[in-house]
Amino acid sequence: MLLRNATIATMTGDRAYGLIEAGAVSFADGKIRWVGPESDLPAEFAETGEDMEGRLITPALIDCHTHIVFGGDRAGEFEMRLNGASYEEVARAGGGIVSTVTATRETSEDDLLADALTRADALIAEGVSVIEIKSGYGLDVDTELKMLRVARRVAASRDVRVKTSFLGAHAVPAEYKGRNADYIAEVCLPALEQAAEEGLADAVDGFCEGIAFSVEEIEPVFAKAKELGLPVKLHAEQLSNIGGTKLAAKYGALSADHVEYADESDAQALAGSGSVAVILPGAFYTLHETQLPPIEAFRKHGVPMALATDCNPGSSPLASLLLTMNMGCTLFRMTPEEALAGVTSHAAQALGLDDTGVIAPGNRADLAVWDVAQPAELAYRIGFNPLNRRIFGGEG
Amino acid sequence: MLLRNATIATMTGDRAYGLIEAGAVSFADGKIRWVGPESDLPAEFAETGEDMEGRLITPALIDCHTHIVFGGDRAGEFEMRLNGASYEEVARAGGGIVSTVTATRETSEDDLLADALTRADALIAEGVSVIEIKSGYGLDVDTELKMLRVARRVAASRDVRVKTSFLGAHAVPAEYKGRNADYIAEVCLPALEQAAEEGLADAVDGFCEGIAFSVEEIEPVFAKAKELGLPVKLHAEQLSNIGGTKLAAKYGALSADHVEYADESDAQALAGSGSVAVILPGAFYTLHETQLPPIEAFRKHGVPMALATDCNPGSSPLASLLLTMNMGCTLFRMTPEEALAGVTSHAAQALGLDDTGVIAPGNRADLAVWDVAQPAELAYRIGFNPLNRRIFGGEG
Ligand SMILES: [Zn+2]
Ligand SMILES: [Zn+2]
Repeated sequence: MLLRNATIATMTGDRAYGLIEAGAVSFADGKIRWVGPESDLPAEFAETGEDMEGRLITPALIDCHTHIVFGGDRAGEFEMRLNGASYEEVARAGGGIVSTVTATRETSEDDLLADALTRADALIAEGVSVIEIKSGYGLDVDTELKMLRVARRVAASRDVRVKTSFLGAHAVPAEYKGRNADYIAEVCLPALEQAAEEGLADAVDGFCEGIAFSVEEIEPVFAKAKELGLPVKLHAEQLSNIGGTKLAAKYGALSADHVEYADESDAQALAGSGSVAVILPGAFYTLHETQLPPIEAFRKHGVPMALATDCNPGSSPLASLLLTMNMGCTLFRMTPEEALAGVTSHAAQALGLDDTGVIAPGNRADLAVWDVAQPAELAYRIGFNPLNRRIFGGEG
Repeated sequence: MLLRNATIATMTGDRAYGLIEAGAVSFADGKIRWVGPESDLPAEFAETGEDMEGRLITPALIDCHTHIVFGGDRAGEFEMRLNGASYEEVARAGGGIVSTVTATRETSEDDLLADALTRADALIAEGVSVIEIKSGYGLDVDTELKMLRVARRVAASRDVRVKTSFLGAHAVPAEYKGRNADYIAEVCLPALEQAAEEGLADAVDGFCEGIAFSVEEIEPVFAKAKELGLPVKLHAEQLSNIGGTKLAAKYGALSADHVEYADESDAQALAGSGSVAVILPGAFYTLHETQLPPIEAFRKHGVPMALATDCNPGSSPLASLLLTMNMGCTLFRMTPEEALAGVTSHAAQALGLDDTGVIAPGNRADLAVWDVAQPAELAYRIGFNPLNRRIFGGEG
């Protein structure tokens, strides 16, 4: 299979976008065999090929931070708040994360899957080939495992890869109110062990925040992950700086996510551990946050930045990775090239994937073909999907 | 034709969303015949009908402020700025509105149409049935007329209605630099006369701002519109308060648009003239504006608020009216009901249309069917299109 007469953003990092003009890419058996200027195409890969008419080809996109498996709906709460209800009134009406936990516990696996697929389909329609999906709305052993099974079924139901993260340490359920450490010991760790045993968890995540778990409470979860041979990642420094980023770095985390309140020392720690900073502008936008993540410090210390939707029913009901790229540029002044790396090469790194996110020989043939002339258009346009074609494992 | 077992947001204003549960809507010959609770369906309209399975039906959406006809692309400029170029450097590289004017003058009618259709299609895919399209990137007689002809051809090419606005007073072209009044007299007014003669203009618009035209410079344009029997609207109080809103009110404008810097006396003026305040969050978001439009004053004085994309290549490359609704709620704290009225009943009013925007007997059968249970979901979700079906003039 040969795609020719294309502009190709390989994202290989040796020059801006790793861009190849008048390029061609050859693949077979689901893998890339060759990419370069068409004029250099080796004879062994020569074939008629398909004329891309100058379209842009990028790696297929990767959404490296989502919570797309959940029960219920929070639109009613959104409306209540905009009609002037206080957070207390919303909580009394059964709103907040509690409502999502209750609904997720009550919803069947099949119904959770059907709902999650509407969100997965929205992402796939924008050229996404890998979706990370977290548990964390069960907060009991059975429901955490149910969520991870649903996540696996998303991959079985669609042409998309799923990487799961066990997020038992997302919030303290009502029945453990004020007993965070007990919840971790009695629910979170046993659920994690079982998830690992059943092969349901590709990574382990936590929510390190004043309103969730402290560094001390997260540490046993990370220690257990290490024991089980699972990589870790962490929701860190979203609403305040309490040391989550440095904890993540200490455990060699794949990523520290949100990080609006991270400072230069946190950036240095991430650089030292080779962790990715996952930037989540959807939550920043929805929550009216004003603290900007330390983009300049990440640049200075060479911390790779990924961008993700954080798709979830409370703080980021966002199902568009293209819009996320625009938000990264508009809200955080990231460059369009950083935005594209954020949803391709750096997003792959945030998931520990080394076979995708970059167009290079040997990698999976996961590609997106766009009706645009230059890569900056992907981040520039708002609420517009110029996907022409998605190729997944060489098919499509 | 009967659609039954639906939740129907009629937007008739007598109660929240004009909502009808377990509703039905009957239409024939492109017009609505009856809408109400299914149990009240008169015998004369009884038929098997189509089961909507509880889905939400709203009026088809209306985008009442766009600039979707233009030549060229501003993604390169977006990228330059994010890579640290100053506005001066961008201007020296040929950026800014000048680049759009140059490209629009140079681009053929067919090519302008092809490009505009990509944006119109994105809107239509979200259930839009009426698009307002402005001229204003020609700034010479021929190109202003060319833009309006392209706008008419959008309506001829798709199942969508187009309302055109002549916006000759959008900017001063380079050849008239510093001679605003001469430009108005020598180019804008003759172009307007010709547009009216050829039936190309449904309304007359202007950009009243320090960087564009003063109240005194806009007034002859409005006087000419009055003479020609055309309604007016105005880009007013976007970056500062210089009196545009009161000028619009004085001329009984259909709408005053942007209005971030409008104050309570402006709201009172609009209430007195029966004009709509058209809120454009896409430009606010893109320009990092911090001045919020006076939503509370509009509510207090009963000024109808519409919401529109302002789709344009410079300050709002936004082609999603659903996202615009979310931005209205998230950035300006509009309620989901105000957001939906903003893209239906109030948007129709901003275009002088009294046959659409509300589901009522006698109106056009322009409907949107959504895969959601309640209307608040339309504004709550971000970057997600739950359109199930669009009905345009009874078809679809
Ligand atoms: Zn998250
Ligand atoms: Zn405008």
